[in-house]
Amino acid sequence: MDIQKDLATLLGSAGWLTAPRDTAPYTRDWLNRYGVPPIGVARPTNTQQVAQVVRLCQQAGVAVVPQGGGTGLVGASVATVSNTVIVSLARMNKIEMIDEQEHTAVVEAGVVLANLHTTLDARDLSFPMHLGSEGTAQIGGLIATNAGGSHAFRFGMMSDLVLGMEVVLPNGDIWTGMRRLIKDNSGLQLRKLFCGAEGRLGIVTRAALRLYPAQRERATAMIACPSLNAMLKTGQMLRRSCGELLVALEFFDTEILDLALHHIPDLTNPMDTAAPFYILFELATSIDTLDLHPLLENAMEPVFEAGWAIDAVVAQSQAQRAALWRIREDLPEGTLREGRQLKHDIAVPVSAFPAFLESSAARIVKILPGTRIWTFGHLADGNIHYNLSPPLGQVDFADTDAELSFAIYENAERHGGTFAAEHGVGHSKHAVADQLRLTTERDLMSKILMAADPVQLMNPSMSGS
Amino acid sequence: MDIQKDLATLLGSAGWLTAPRDTAPYTRDWLNRYGVPPIGVARPTNTQQVAQVVRLCQQAGVAVVPQGGGTGLVGASVATVSNTVIVSLARMNKIEMIDEQEHTAVVEAGVVLANLHTTLDARDLSFPMHLGSEGTAQIGGLIATNAGGSHAFRFGMMSDLVLGMEVVLPNGDIWTGMRRLIKDNSGLQLRKLFCGAEGRLGIVTRAALRLYPAQRERATAMIACPSLNAMLKTGQMLRRSCGELLVALEFFDTEILDLALHHIPDLTNPMDTAAPFYILFELATSIDTLDLHPLLENAMEPVFEAGWAIDAVVAQSQAQRAALWRIREDLPEGTLREGRQLKHDIAVPVSAFPAFLESSAARIVKILPGTRIWTFGHLADGNIHYNLSPPLGQVDFADTDAELSFAIYENAERHGGTFAAEHGVGHSKHAVADQLRLTTERDLMSKILMAADPVQLMNPSMSGS
Repeated sequence: MDIQKDLATLLGSAGWLTAPRDTAPYTRDWLNRYGVPPIGVARPTNTQQVAQVVRLCQQAGVAVVPQGGGTGLVGASVATVSNTVIVSLARMNKIEMIDEQEHTAVVEAGVVLANLHTTLDARDLSFPMHLGSEGTAQIGGLIATNAGGSHAFRFGMMSDLVLGMEVVLPNGDIWTGMRRLIKDNSGLQLRKLFCGAEGRLGIVTRAALRLYPAQRERATAMIACPSLNAMLKTGQMLRRSCGELLVALEFFDTEILDLALHHIPDLTNPMDTAAPFYILFELATSIDTLDLHPLLENAMEPVFEAGWAIDAVVAQSQAQRAALWRIREDLPEGTLREGRQLKHDIAVPVSAFPAFLESSAARIVKILPGTRIWTFGHLADGNIHYNLSPPLGQVDFADTDAELSFAIYENAERHGGTFAAEHGVGHSKHAVADQLRLTTERDLMSKILMAADPVQLMNPSMSGS
Repeated sequence: MDIQKDLATLLGSAGWLTAPRDTAPYTRDWLNRYGVPPIGVARPTNTQQVAQVVRLCQQAGVAVVPQGGGTGLVGASVATVSNTVIVSLARMNKIEMIDEQEHTAVVEAGVVLANLHTTLDARDLSFPMHLGSEGTAQIGGLIATNAGGSHAFRFGMMSDLVLGMEVVLPNGDIWTGMRRLIKDNSGLQLRKLFCGAEGRLGIVTRAALRLYPAQRERATAMIACPSLNAMLKTGQMLRRSCGELLVALEFFDTEILDLALHHIPDLTNPMDTAAPFYILFELATSIDTLDLHPLLENAMEPVFEAGWAIDAVVAQSQAQRAALWRIREDLPEGTLREGRQLKHDIAVPVSAFPAFLESSAARIVKILPGTRIWTFGHLADGNIHYNLSPPLGQVDFADTDAELSFAIYENAERHGGTFAAEHGVGHSKHAVADQLRLTTERDLMSKILMAADPVQLMNPSMSGS
């Protein structure tokens, strides 16, 4: 094929991979569910190269799928048709600028989030996006999926944290929207639209990010709540009493905690008292004269008085803090080791939690009795990771997978929620999106996508077409 | 005309105004610069009526211009062609729901911002959008213009604060995107795109808003800085030392302060020392056990030690706080009373302030020597309100108005800034936008607008077409 020769010439041998052993690491998604071998993997080193790759693919009628760290959970960064070029941004990994006065950074799309954190730490600054995959996830991918994570209710999702961006558009033009401004109403909010567009509107190559002062003090605790209602009340009270200092408010149920403790040998339970639900919360401040521990203790007092909490552990050291966070972050690994699972990233308004959880369990028991339910997630923003394992003694869901998942997604929608919270739609929820989106929004999304990419070669077979 | 009869039948006599004395209050913009008499003013009371109005207008080939409180400064909510129906949302002013557990509110588009503030105060909650016009500005208009204000660097612009919305689309369909969720990646971020679309993509009729705990404690101070550089350093130091408690960081120059003091008889200067620049900053917290005044004093100490501040006034009471804020908020009134003025709402990255201000002054003196420059705005986000008065003794700008304004806008762009920060583009910056936008972004905006509204009857003669 001509395009192969053209791309090899353009990108060189390190920039254009076609041998199966070279392309293999780029071929399958994180959960190993999706991905067919592409024509090859392009690894450009600058925006001009990305633009040329896109132009060549458009001319050849070849699909283009951008790929960041590949930690997405919905299969949005691998090929779903073989006539595809994967564009890996991994070699565009420069932190170009950090401005302490402006509180901004300019980075290339392939910068790994944890590397940015480390670099900023040394400058007493922070980029407040935190999620389990931060050691691998790249800025471009975080933008394309509009990532959320544990601090999103406090600092926002990527769409709130990205000030500007450079994008190679579907026709190969480069949009340099790199203003480093919070306030920029010079037209439609394109910079917001590209967040979460999953590569359908173009390939993000650089970004201007909003920074914050580094968090200098932290206080972290885990609370045992005797009921769902107690957990919700605890969350509400903590939000009120901890105000702007509350940076994380996570929850998980006792079943998923037990599962993680069972499967992960060196994970330990810091809590003496078993309870149906737990909250992990953290206060943080960039003000070094502020002592957070009295505030944290003050905040917990009324929660215990009201009976919404029956036990608590407050981290007394950095090591204890890390141990508490490890429990939260190892929960997905616990369910993974249990075998086959169905993962669902949904959100419902917090006030709908009880009705949603109860009716979801009722639906599931009708479809496949004995199916085990694990719930954990981000309490302040209603984001539930609602995962299922087959009934004890069974290795699969007896072909009810699609029915189970759709029941959960549909039930989230029914309760004012969404079938896609922080992981996006990707390939895995394409069909669900077609069924659950309102006609008006499906039409409008489709019109925008068609206007931006009439030939629909940018990450095709994603949602919204 | 048929449409007149149809609208009269649909909306009744209180809902369809055509007599000049009735339509007059809706006809001209806030600064009395734009607006031709429309066919009439529709005042629907519900979303269905809005949809029917839009449908009737589309059928008749009549332009539709939505109007909120009318406090916008770029002429985006009045008719620019006579064949227009203005749709006032003023009668859709219900606060439908406030949820303390979720920290969300659901409101109709015509709710006045200050009314929402008052209602939330009583519930110990807040919606952190603050701007001078809040006594008149309506939620729908704030969304359509993607308003910013004094707290935007801390809590975000409207695009960061609106969780969901209901919109009557250009074809009269109703999109009910009313999920009350921070995390919703179920497709393209339409809810973000409608913020700042200035009515071009549809009419926002309802919104789900993000709330915060009420701010219970405040500490406010005004600082005199001996130079521009000192002001910038002071701002940087305060951002670092006050962290998440800093909710406002405003600045103004000595010329505009003197002008306001000159024109507004009962306005008093709290500062003993004259200085070229002043900062007004405020700390706030929703935590009632946190004493902010020691933090504020701590934060100012190194600023004085470094010589970046030469005087300061700390508000000791609610009345003193109000007096400090009144100085800031009366600045525009001062320039207004000076006579003819040119207002420019621009933003540049904070690190570009010195170069931008110096080169702008140099450009202005070449165009019309003696032109007086007043600057004030929001230091943390680089948003400068850059206003001009004619040279002393002259009543106008000797026909250099357009040249002066373009020089400022172009210079902002040249310094990595924007010609439209928080007021939007509207009618007043239409031509400027056509000149200063990048070709790629103009094309993309145009494609999206055409896709959403092929007949271009929604607020025509705005930007981006």
